[in-house]
Amino acid sequence: MDRNTIKWGARAIATAALVAPVAAFAQDEAPAAAEMVGGGTAYILNTLLFLIGGFLVMWMAAGFAMLEAGLVRSKNVSMQCLKNIALYSIAGIMFWVIGYNIAYPGDFNGYFGLSGITYPMQGVGEADTDTGYSVASDWFFQMVFCATTASIVSGTLAERIKLWPFLIFTVVLTGVIYPVVVSWEWGAGFLDQMGFSDFAGSTLVHSTGGWAALVGAIILGARAGRYGPDGRVNVFPGTNIPLATLGTFILWLGWFGFNGASQLAMGTVGDVSDVSKIFVNTNMAACAGVVVAIILTQIIYKKVDVTMALNGALAGLVSITAEPLTPSVPMAMLIGGIGGVIVVFAVPMLDKLKIDDVVGAIPVHLFAGIWGTLAVCLTNGDVPFIAQLTGVIATGVFVSIAAGIVWFILKMVMGLRPSAEDELTGLDKVEVGVEAYPEFVNT
Amino acid sequence: MDRNTIKWGARAIATAALVAPVAAFAQDEAPAAAEMVGGGTAYILNTLLFLIGGFLVMWMAAGFAMLEAGLVRSKNVSMQCLKNIALYSIAGIMFWVIGYNIAYPGDFNGYFGLSGITYPMQGVGEADTDTGYSVASDWFFQMVFCATTASIVSGTLAERIKLWPFLIFTVVLTGVIYPVVVSWEWGAGFLDQMGFSDFAGSTLVHSTGGWAALVGAIILGARAGRYGPDGRVNVFPGTNIPLATLGTFILWLGWFGFNGASQLAMGTVGDVSDVSKIFVNTNMAACAGVVVAIILTQIIYKKVDVTMALNGALAGLVSITAEPLTPSVPMAMLIGGIGGVIVVFAVPMLDKLKIDDVVGAIPVHLFAGIWGTLAVCLTNGDVPFIAQLTGVIATGVFVSIAAGIVWFILKMVMGLRPSAEDELTGLDKVEVGVEAYPEFVNT
Amino acid sequence: MDRNTIKWGARAIATAALVAPVAAFAQDEAPAAAEMVGGGTAYILNTLLFLIGGFLVMWMAAGFAMLEAGLVRSKNVSMQCLKNIALYSIAGIMFWVIGYNIAYPGDFNGYFGLSGITYPMQGVGEADTDTGYSVASDWFFQMVFCATTASIVSGTLAERIKLWPFLIFTVVLTGVIYPVVVSWEWGAGFLDQMGFSDFAGSTLVHSTGGWAALVGAIILGARAGRYGPDGRVNVFPGTNIPLATLGTFILWLGWFGFNGASQLAMGTVGDVSDVSKIFVNTNMAACAGVVVAIILTQIIYKKVDVTMALNGALAGLVSITAEPLTPSVPMAMLIGGIGGVIVVFAVPMLDKLKIDDVVGAIPVHLFAGIWGTLAVCLTNGDVPFIAQLTGVIATGVFVSIAAGIVWFILKMVMGLRPSAEDELTGLDKVEVGVEAYPEFVNT
Repeated sequence: MDRNTIKWGARAIATAALVAPVAAFAQDEAPAAAEMVGGGTAYILNTLLFLIGGFLVMWMAAGFAMLEAGLVRSKNVSMQCLKNIALYSIAGIMFWVIGYNIAYPGDFNGYFGLSGITYPMQGVGEADTDTGYSVASDWFFQMVFCATTASIVSGTLAERIKLWPFLIFTVVLTGVIYPVVVSWEWGAGFLDQMGFSDFAGSTLVHSTGGWAALVGAIILGARAGRYGPDGRVNVFPGTNIPLATLGTFILWLGWFGFNGASQLAMGTVGDVSDVSKIFVNTNMAACAGVVVAIILTQIIYKKVDVTMALNGALAGLVSITAEPLTPSVPMAMLIGGIGGVIVVFAVPMLDKLKIDDVVGAIPVHLFAGIWGTLAVCLTNGDVPFIAQLTGVIATGVFVSIAAGIVWFILKMVMGLRPSAEDELTGLDKVEVGVEAYPEFVNT
Repeated sequence: MDRNTIKWGARAIATAALVAPVAAFAQDEAPAAAEMVGGGTAYILNTLLFLIGGFLVMWMAAGFAMLEAGLVRSKNVSMQCLKNIALYSIAGIMFWVIGYNIAYPGDFNGYFGLSGITYPMQGVGEADTDTGYSVASDWFFQMVFCATTASIVSGTLAERIKLWPFLIFTVVLTGVIYPVVVSWEWGAGFLDQMGFSDFAGSTLVHSTGGWAALVGAIILGARAGRYGPDGRVNVFPGTNIPLATLGTFILWLGWFGFNGASQLAMGTVGDVSDVSKIFVNTNMAACAGVVVAIILTQIIYKKVDVTMALNGALAGLVSITAEPLTPSVPMAMLIGGIGGVIVVFAVPMLDKLKIDDVVGAIPVHLFAGIWGTLAVCLTNGDVPFIAQLTGVIATGVFVSIAAGIVWFILKMVMGLRPSAEDELTGLDKVEVGVEAYPEFVNT
Repeated sequence: MDRNTIKWGARAIATAALVAPVAAFAQDEAPAAAEMVGGGTAYILNTLLFLIGGFLVMWMAAGFAMLEAGLVRSKNVSMQCLKNIALYSIAGIMFWVIGYNIAYPGDFNGYFGLSGITYPMQGVGEADTDTGYSVASDWFFQMVFCATTASIVSGTLAERIKLWPFLIFTVVLTGVIYPVVVSWEWGAGFLDQMGFSDFAGSTLVHSTGGWAALVGAIILGARAGRYGPDGRVNVFPGTNIPLATLGTFILWLGWFGFNGASQLAMGTVGDVSDVSKIFVNTNMAACAGVVVAIILTQIIYKKVDVTMALNGALAGLVSITAEPLTPSVPMAMLIGGIGGVIVVFAVPMLDKLKIDDVVGAIPVHLFAGIWGTLAVCLTNGDVPFIAQLTGVIATGVFVSIAAGIVWFILKMVMGLRPSAEDELTGLDKVEVGVEAYPEFVNT
């Protein structure tokens, strides 16, 4: 196929040349008339979109792990790796046990519903043709979004939270808190009914994770020695910048599945074209976030902080996630670029407030998530601003309170922080028993 | 879909069986003529499944490389990287030269066959519509499984095997040993004829690699200084835990292709639904492996060893690989969880037997592979236990003997181990001439 | 598509709305009888190929980043990470602003054309059924190729170029230089008209990047201390070999999209079979590159340099990129293997010429790119050698002059190199303000 003649004419010739051998079975196998995409083909393509999008979003779990491992001190790296593979596993289990059934409860009062315990997965060879896609593929795609929410929290709270309270919090976050928020929008609850729109989760996923992280950071407190008297901020530099960079690239790649497959259909020409448009907008928003962050940090600090560039990309991605389809490319870049601005200013702002967010997840996921949710109205005229605002506030109130209660209970029951001595030693030695880089670091 | 009968006839039957429920919505929703999927579309979708599954499994080569590089001492990391890219390349070449033709010999005596030298790849624009998918895509998908088998061996034997004997062993493993085992099942050999079932390779791939690794470890001996008097085990900690974590996530991601695309068809609604179910079961088995390993190590060691969590995921994945389609989610989690149990107990057990498995590949691939193969009978009533047991034993006997012979010959002819001095210096300096982290490690 | 109404009813309406324009060509183009794949299905499959190929090539940006980060000294690693995420972002923006419209100008004089400013992306729900694929997916796929070209330059010039001149150069390379070269072939310009053939970009992408890198390296000069008197070459070893290995595996994976999706169509049985053949040839060329490099370095140096093995794989991939479809497997391996030979001999040759190419990108991308372009004639009888030679020379002359002018202007206006003191300190501290491994390296 010559790139210069991508016309139906040339392809028709290629097609005709192959009709002979194929027609033999075509007549045996397929009904006579030519469909556009028949129901079965659409089913397969829709399902395939969920599977591809699903494994791309699963891959984001590795992205969070590498980003976080790269930005913490070496005495806590094994713990960060452990938390990430554990939370991904917990999210999958909880979402099967109860999470999906809260997120998609069917008929319910719009605020909380539960359509049963454990998800009714299909049997072998069964195809629920009512829905137009495999229910297992839909569950898989939804589940990896739940896991993403959990991943967001582990970065902010790194280096001074004990393993088990964090894992127990993850159980509640993935089993209940996140699914409840999802039910309000994607599950056809009260937010959806008032016209709230969150295409792939700037609020449902990123802000939910962000609020849980923010509340956790406040209740947990900062890492020892992080903030000194007179507003002094002691830098605890990340110990593996290329890993953090890798993690960012992984997240960027996974986001094509995160946003693209949220079209939820690929069985029509219009749908796949929309998926393509979403790929483009997702990418351009991230590009803008990077470039804005680079320019700003050069101007403000006279140096270009690579971690700001990385977070600029991520903030751009979060910003476009609420509405990656309707914007034009310039609008997508504006939306993503403002995400970059948010990150550059919010990261030091949190430090001024003595909120110790180890990786900048609060600016990236919460602040940019709020911005992205409100920005939907800039490009999607069907969405009332009051609905977006309501969604932002309702999510903030609910998640903050729910997460706050869980953090508080855990704090009372088992304590959240390691002892001062353990925190100084490092969680790898204390709780994991495995050092991350035993030959590189003298301890 | 049985790998042995990938014929349009079988698929046409599957298609017809699904026309009834699909036709109902087809008449309501889609234009009247809507076939299910026409022959050409099914061909394309089947081929696409092989291509996507194929590149996901290719990616697992990187996963093994990172896992192993992260778990060896820094003086041997460059060697581990070299071995992994070399074995992937050798596997591809050998599988083209002879491997595929031994694995899929067509009509043969059920024990050994060879359908020719080099694989007859298709020409430009040729489509073998008899099979229902592109033969090149099928070869590609099969080849990456061969490479996976080779990858398993490199981890166990790390740090005290010379490069060239290892590469020569890989030539024989990928060219002959693995393909022979494959021919017994997927190639319609004697195991298949007695009803043995191994959906994606718990025995064919993972146990084959595991037996070769075990025999190699025994013949090779442990790393110098690893085992002391009185049963003392000296820990040689891995030098890059985040890399090992990344490797595990990469393998987990690739496994969706490894198991999912082993459905071997995506041209019907039933097939793609089965692929989806396989994605889910594969994921849940790994989740269970992680959680079980975490809980067990907390109880036994009072710390949660991240390397146990990583190996728990991998063991869960290996366990479900023999039958990822028929289990319910709870059964998939049980099967994977027992994989996690196996890993936690088998790793120290090997040390007690002074079998030095650097990365835990024997518990993960061999022991969990045996478990997964036998566990097929728990969820697939068509499979006789005696057939599974026969497959496990036949594979163990054959691979152990064949690999043992090769290892022994190599030992006699060229020696397997570096000298004691070279082993102390490290293989990177001695055989590669390139240090892995020259600025981090004082040498 | 609203997540809450994923019902066949809504989708059927969308489908029906698109039947009208598609049916028109369906009757013109496809045989009346059971189509092979209906027009809509072909559109979706073609688009899907671009999306999958696109995200695989996007992922190569991470591969270049890891490869380069692994091969530079630790004081420059953060800078290398920053440059890679920045250039990927710049490429995306420039290719939208102007690049695509220069690369594909429609009717033009064959040497330079510009079809407008900014790319006319499609609107929501719009499907340009004339082309047979989503225009957004085509732009996305083309854009990531542009980014790849930019990635090639960053490796060669690492460790002694300031950030901002490099980024500005990238703006011009991705906005103008690369697109002009593309217009000559894929844009139906003068090279295409004389029969020049470059399937996926051995010249257009890899040689373009390689010439720009070569000219830059000459103008920039070598790293301080790299070459001593009497032809002495001081080795500056890479500081993270496993990262470089990871980067190579990432690039190898991405190349399946790079070459495979350059078939530009997946809507017919013949096309998807060709895509499959391309996957195979791409893989085998890389395998051969690795094996040849390993054997050669063992013979020449008595050690097997892992970085040579890595570059052997990449050179094999570049070599096959000009024509991955027509070769047989043995020919693909020959072509890739010669790429391996090129790398083994060219890397030290450049040092003899005191051209300091930090990662070996000139042998891998330029020299192997030239070889791959000329080698097309070995397997594709439709391509005149004189056309290939013309393409190689025209690209070399144009890119060298254009890049040389830009490098020279930047040198005059702002200087390319950091000061000797800054170069000694390391770019991470000087320009980024963030050290890559602050706990591993004493500074």
